[in-house]
Amino acid sequence: MADPLFQRIALIGLGLIGSSLARRVKQDGLAAHVAGCARSQETRDKAMELGFVDSVHADPAKAAEDADLVVICTPVSTYAALGAAVGPKLKPGAILSDVGSVKQAVIAALAPHVPAGAHLVPAHPVAGTEHSGPEAGFAELFDERHCILTPENGTDAQAVDKVAALWRKAGMTVEVMDPAHHDIVLGITSHVPHLIAYTIVLTATELEEHLKGEVIKYSASGFRDFTRIAASDPTMWRDVFLNNQEAVLEALGRFTEDLTALQRAIRRGQGDILEDLFTRTRAIRRGVIEAGQDQPEEEKRHDG
Amino acid sequence: MADPLFQRIALIGLGLIGSSLARRVKQDGLAAHVAGCARSQETRDKAMELGFVDSVHADPAKAAEDADLVVICTPVSTYAALGAAVGPKLKPGAILSDVGSVKQAVIAALAPHVPAGAHLVPAHPVAGTEHSGPEAGFAELFDERHCILTPENGTDAQAVDKVAALWRKAGMTVEVMDPAHHDIVLGITSHVPHLIAYTIVLTATELEEHLKGEVIKYSASGFRDFTRIAASDPTMWRDVFLNNQEAVLEALGRFTEDLTALQRAIRRGQGDILEDLFTRTRAIRRGVIEAGQDQPEEEKRHDG
Repeated sequence: MADPLFQRIALIGLGLIGSSLARRVKQDGLAAHVAGCARSQETRDKAMELGFVDSVHADPAKAAEDADLVVICTPVSTYAALGAAVGPKLKPGAILSDVGSVKQAVIAALAPHVPAGAHLVPAHPVAGTEHSGPEAGFAELFDERHCILTPENGTDAQAVDKVAALWRKAGMTVEVMDPAHHDIVLGITSHVPHLIAYTIVLTATELEEHLKGEVIKYSASGFRDFTRIAASDPTMWRDVFLNNQEAVLEALGRFTEDLTALQRAIRRGQGDILEDLFTRTRAIRRGVIEAGQDQPEEEKRHDG
Repeated sequence: MADPLFQRIALIGLGLIGSSLARRVKQDGLAAHVAGCARSQETRDKAMELGFVDSVHADPAKAAEDADLVVICTPVSTYAALGAAVGPKLKPGAILSDVGSVKQAVIAALAPHVPAGAHLVPAHPVAGTEHSGPEAGFAELFDERHCILTPENGTDAQAVDKVAALWRKAGMTVEVMDPAHHDIVLGITSHVPHLIAYTIVLTATELEEHLKGEVIKYSASGFRDFTRIAASDPTMWRDVFLNNQEAVLEALGRFTEDLTALQRAIRRGQGDILEDLFTRTRAIRRGVIEAGQDQPEEEKRHDG
């Protein structure tokens, strides 16, 4: 086997993303040693039992010691404290990275803790499922998905290349993007869709009991797809919204304006406006299919 | 083979639903003769070529002649004119039915045209895909889905039973519901989710070109699922919203209130409120899975 990319990778957090990355790294021999860090004894035991780490640690500083790559895989609200714990342990040439869904807030939280000679290379592997925890992970999670790196100008090019190589070997297409631009794009494609999905499921949650039962029963008519998105990890998503406030509120403003216009057309019975708008959305769907981001299958039966 | 349920079924409209029903009826011998009606020569030719009808007609009255069941499978705005054309042709004992996604408006449009001795049994097979047209249909579309019948009080019980038997043999679970109640339930589970999906894709459509390209590229992070729902037939959905105005505006009002509350919590940085609400939505997801309306698969990777 070729030399591993890294001698020691420390993964801080062993949930869906951390444990999936660990599995891929072990499976493909991308590191000589995978050190896992988790707060709970239960997760640490599970990680050793499932065998996707070589060592487990309760203390992030211990996990990071002597690592040439430390990847933070926890909700974004924990980053500042983890940066303070891990930063002093980063040896010269070591890389600190992460998997967070927002990037400006991540840089603000971590950069102050990265010592001279070590490198900060923030990353966002755009992949996930509705499931959480160490048992939800699997080595193929990242296949054929995008990973966005948002290093600040002047970051060591070799360090960026090594993080890019890791995610490419995990199956992803890697791109470099400005962190502010990342937050705007993901605000539209991911954060606002999740917020809207949470909202519509929440609206249904507050219906009278008998109506709620019927909503569940007939959920295949559209609602079901929202419940899947709205089943994502609550703590992770709380942190996303708190840490990408500006871009989310901006995208939400545009959405609300458009929804109000459609609501107005419905109230006034303006069918031509509705049909025109519903037709214009088809170009985007074609784009998504052409970009290989979805398969238009007969089996994906959803409406009615 | 057992006697077919019907001697002659006339299907007015040969799009996704009409052609799927035709295929199932032919496949399982549920009618001795399937008469199809479509406005365009192209659809009529296609239907004969694909072999899911025994005869095709441009004139709905001709298709309905001598039929013991006529099923209208076109957008709801066409129902009043089709009812007027077909009604006088309904022989004693014949049944007029439909597949529309709204039910009060359907009854208002069709009931005046049903002669004494014939029966109106409105139906809503809750099934679909993002595709439209006679080539998009398939015989298994209705398997394991629900069909809702909304006959008015006093409707001939045998006629209701025969329509129920047809949809059961097509693979569906059949229930009877009050039409007003149907429109409220489907307003929440189907109509508002579709409106919201259309809106969010519309919002993306109006972004600057370079941003739109990136939204498509990173669509797997949540947005993609909305594009699938928003690819549904524009004319059909225009008619749904125009014909279920009251229930849609009511459900939309609740949704907007909830969205505004979440927006307020994001702006004020109230993480505890967000996390609490995101946790409460999980019960509905569990309900959907327990009700067999979705499979929680690892392969359904959607967020990030």
